[in-house]
This record gives sequence, C-alpha cells and structure tokens, in this order.
Amino acid sequence: MSPESPVIALLSAPDVAPPPNLAEIEELATVRHCTADDLGEVLPGADVLVLWDFFSRALRDNWGPATSSLRWVHVCAAGVDSLLFDELTASDVVVTNAHGVFDRPIAEFVLASIFARDKRLHESMALQRDHVWKHRETVATHRTSALVIGTGGIGRACAKMLRAVGISVVGAGRTARETDPDFGHVIATTELTGHIGDFDNVVTIAPLTAQTSGMIDARMLAAMKPGAHLINVGRGELVDDAALADSLRSGHLGAASLDVFATEPLPAESELWDLPGVAISAHMSGDAHGWRDALADQALENLRRYVAAGAEPLAEVLVNVVDKERGYISGGG
Amino acid sequence: MSPESPVIALLSAPDVAPPPNLAEIEELATVRHCTADDLGEVLPGADVLVLWDFFSRALRDNWGPATSSLRWVHVCAAGVDSLLFDELTASDVVVTNAHGVFDRPIAEFVLASIFARDKRLHESMALQRDHVWKHRETVATHRTSALVIGTGGIGRACAKMLRAVGISVVGAGRTARETDPDFGHVIATTELTGHIGDFDNVVTIAPLTAQTSGMIDARMLAAMKPGAHLINVGRGELVDDAALADSLRSGHLGAASLDVFATEPLPAESELWDLPGVAISAHMSGDAHGWRDALADQALENLRRYVAAGAEPLAEVLVNVVDKERGYISGGG
Repeated sequence: MSPESPVIALLSAPDVAPPPNLAEIEELATVRHCTADDLGEVLPGADVLVLWDFFSRALRDNWGPATSSLRWVHVCAAGVDSLLFDELTASDVVVTNAHGVFDRPIAEFVLASIFARDKRLHESMALQRDHVWKHRETVATHRTSALVIGTGGIGRACAKMLRAVGISVVGAGRTARETDPDFGHVIATTELTGHIGDFDNVVTIAPLTAQTSGMIDARMLAAMKPGAHLINVGRGELVDDAALADSLRSGHLGAASLDVFATEPLPAESELWDLPGVAISAHMSGDAHGWRDALADQALENLRRYVAAGAEPLAEVLVNVVDKERGYISGGG
Repeated sequence: MSPESPVIALLSAPDVAPPPNLAEIEELATVRHCTADDLGEVLPGADVLVLWDFFSRALRDNWGPATSSLRWVHVCAAGVDSLLFDELTASDVVVTNAHGVFDRPIAEFVLASIFARDKRLHESMALQRDHVWKHRETVATHRTSALVIGTGGIGRACAKMLRAVGISVVGAGRTARETDPDFGHVIATTELTGHIGDFDNVVTIAPLTAQTSGMIDARMLAAMKPGAHLINVGRGELVDDAALADSLRSGHLGAASLDVFATEPLPAESELWDLPGVAISAHMSGDAHGWRDALADQALENLRRYVAAGAEPLAEVLVNVVDKERGYISGGG
C-alpha cells in the first residue's frame, strides 16, 4: 500500500460479515472497521465512508469536526433516504450508491407479484392445503396495464420486463414526457390522481423524498381502479398504511404486494399481515443470490476510480454519483 | 338457413352453458344439442361434431353406423388425446382443435410458476400467516435455464415468454435441430435423459401420445438437476406420479408446479397435495377470462370455412387440422 492510500471507515451492522472482497479493498486502502456505535471514533482522518450497513443513519449523528477529512461516502444500497441530511447535502462530500445491482431482480419480483395475483397462485395454495380442486378463471396478464411510479434504474428495469411479457406500461416521474426510451409515455407525479385510475397494476419504486413521502394516500387510493393491485418495492413511507388498510378492507383495492415498510422488520402486531389480498415479503425483492458479492464488487470498482483520481474532481471520476439535492441519481427525471 | 346447411351435433357436458355465440352458429347450421349420454341419438345424419365438452371420450363409444355421415370433428381443446382412437384416425373424418387460444395464457402461467418458486412467494405467504419477518435470498430468474418439452404452439409461446425475461431456453421435440425460430436449439425427446440435467426448470407441454405417456419417469427424474423445478401444464399422464412423489420426498427434485393430472379432479386422497415443493392448480393454466368466448369464436370461424368449402377438400379449407397419426398439429416437429 502506498503512503497516500486512503483511509476508509467501513460501517457494518453488528454481527454482519464484512464485504467478501475485503482483502482486495485492503490492498488499496487502510480499512477501519466499525459499527454505528463506534463510527465517531474511526471517522477522524478518514477520507471515505463505506456503508456496508445498508440503511444506517449513523453519519448524521456523527457529523461535525470528526468528518472534516471526509471526501466520499459510498452506500451499498439503491435508496439514499436513510443516509442524506441537510449538512451532508450542503457539503462537498460526494455520495455514490449501488445503482444497477438491484434493477433486474426487483423487476423480476414485481412481475412475479403481478403474475401471482393474476394467476391466483396464493388462492390455489390455500385450496391445496385443504385438498380442494376448484377450477377458476385467471387474468391474461398481457391484456393488463401497469403504472410504474419512479423512472430511475429500477423503474426502467421494471418497465422493460413488464413490457417484455406484453403489459402496457406507463411511467410516472418528475417531468411529463412522451418519448422516454423505456416508458414511452411518462406522467408527471404532480398529475397522478388524474391518471392512476387507468391502470390494473401500480408499482411504487420512486426514491423516498419530501415530495414522494406518503404519495399513495387515501385520495390516491380512492382514485385507483377498483380491484387494482399495488406493488410497493420502493420504501414503506411512500404509502399511507392506514389508508391502504381501509382501501383493502373496503374491497376497493384488490391486492397489495408489499416488500418494504416504514418500520422494518414489520412488527408482529401490524394489521398489514392479515389484510385481504396482501402479500408481504421481508425487504428482499432485490436480494438475489450473489447480491452481497455484487455490492462489494461495485464498491471496489469505485474505490479503484477514487485511488486513480489524482487531482480530478471526484464527482466526475466516480460512477453512480447521487444528486444530493434530489435524493437520487439524476438523469432519469 | 339454406336447405344444404350442415347438421351439427353439439356435445356439451351436463349443466354447462352452450357456446355464447350459439345464435350465430344456428344461422349457419342445424344444431342438435346433446351430452355424452344421448350423443348416439343425434349423430345419425350429422355432418359435424363439435365437442364443447372439452375432454369427452364419447365419440369412440358411438363410432359405427351412426357416424357414417360425419365429415368433421372440432374439439374446443388444445389436446386431442381424449378424442382420438384408431377408427377415427383411420377414417376420412377431419379433426380440428383449439390451436392458439391457450398459448399465451399457459405461457404466462408457466412463467408465473417459475417466478413464484424463484422468488419464494409461497414461503413468504406461509411466514405471513404466522406474522414472521424473515429475509431470504431469492433466485435471479434471468440467470436460470429452462427446457420446454413440446414444440407446438403452446411450447413456442412458453419459449418466447421465458426468453423475453432472460431465461435460457432449449426445446425438446420429435427431431433435433439447431436453428428453430423460437427455440434455437431443440433436443430430440429420444435423447432427453442425456440433456435434462442441464436445466433449472423443465416444462412439459408435449401432446399426450404413446411416445410421450410416462416420459417423466423415475429414470428421467433422477437425471434432472438436483433442486430443479418441474412444471406440467400438458397432461398428467406425461409424468409418473409415484416416481415424482419419490423424487420430491428425497429432496432431489426441488419443486413441481402441476396443473394437470391423470385423474381430474385430483382425488382428495392423492399424496400429491401434501408433497414438499408442490403447487397444485385445477387444470386452469390456459383459462384466462374470455377463454370460452375465444373457443366459441374459433369454432364459428371454422364453421364458416366449412360452409363455404363447396367441393374443396375439408383438410385444406379448415384451419388447425390435427395430424391424427401423430396426435397433434404437425409442423412444429
């Protein structure tokens, strides 16, 4: 290791194995291991913070003199909502994320959820437990429509996969447009209530920001097509749980596939577990076998860019740089 | 109706509504309604038999002098295994089927079954019933492979849909070939045991014939990849149930999604209901909303061709003509 090799604070959750490529990282940098509890002790003098604890809020608790040497934060997650806070946004620290790693697995999970509902697989499994043979008609998924709210990398992967099997897909993003390469038509999220009722399936994969928090509220749910299916693979806070519960109980919303929740793990006493038409999974839609390797490889690749950067601006050298003002990687809109 | 309008024997199951377009059929033909019980009474003088009772074996029981006027049998099903028998095969009677109606819904059902297993949806639902949050890694379906046994219309639709989401697909059919338009590579079914072990998913949608009956036997199952997933949407008789049960119990086969059975409805006492990794549905994979309308429209369209045929050979005028020797529509191989 050269004397100028960077110092990395590597934040992991307690009892979680380090990145599988740690030896390679240590060839390029001095690594200081920590958890949220001792982050403050390892930050002074650190050039880089790598969040292997994917949804940690520990940086904001330690912001100040201890972080004066910090130039770059890499989070091994797609969403940066837990990480960002005003002082970090206002600083020169460059933030990068795990853009791309989860795109295709999450798109598959979304399509799996749509198919499971359309083909009545959970109903069939319930009948199977009772040894009951009951023929039922299914939905021809290729004759249905889907609105994908969120036009970042994961939203685009969803659009491509849903279109590949014949679903009519429209996007919803910050700005309306007619010729998006993946979506074709994109609706402005500000005009969502006027359009959301056109779709059999609504997928929420928008970044969690002040603008998107609680966007699927009672009014939005009431505007959805009767019997529609909500698939949330973004963040739990995008959806008003109480309004969701009301809509499902009333029979207006037909189904909800929920992989993310405002509180995770979802508490055992949550009413969501037992609502009609709900399928719950444990924030795992993107976590296909090998996901930790992919995250670690991506962090290492960006570290190589960091080490080779010299005097060049970090924001131009690193890949997957987050627009801290917007709260996601810009370009998608 | 003209005096030369044909006489149709329309065979329905008891208590089943007639084709929804019956009025249009009756503009073109004299319709004699019957069930299996009184088929013999309406056959004499009938030119056409339409099997609205999809899997009826009643024609063979009434074959003889009563069927001497019969020129055409149309069955509103994709598989003709229940219908065919030696005397019918040897006769000049033209047989047509419901080619095409079920292609895309069945392909969707197959992909839904693959996704449900890869994304562990049934496990998640079982955990949900107990309010248990348990993160688990999933399979990236686009990194998996599938063998589709059967290269007719439904098999081709399966290949297209599975490929559309990134699954590596190979076909198995009567003759090996390298440049099939939908499959690319097709393995000869006679050489299946040497190749079946290469695939994560095996889809059986071959027509049921003397050659295919029982093809998924103990030896074939043993040759499959450990943990593989068998999806049967063809006919129950393609699979040896006892061998299947042994393979699942031993843990060699990882999952089986079964929509068809040698005895339907599947008896409540069948061991299949409770085997590990099994998902059972009630012969419904192709039955998307509107399927009866589509079947009736297709029968009517062929009846229009029949009426307009004049002296032309029926086998050239009608569409979806079954190769009675082979037991399916030829061309796929």
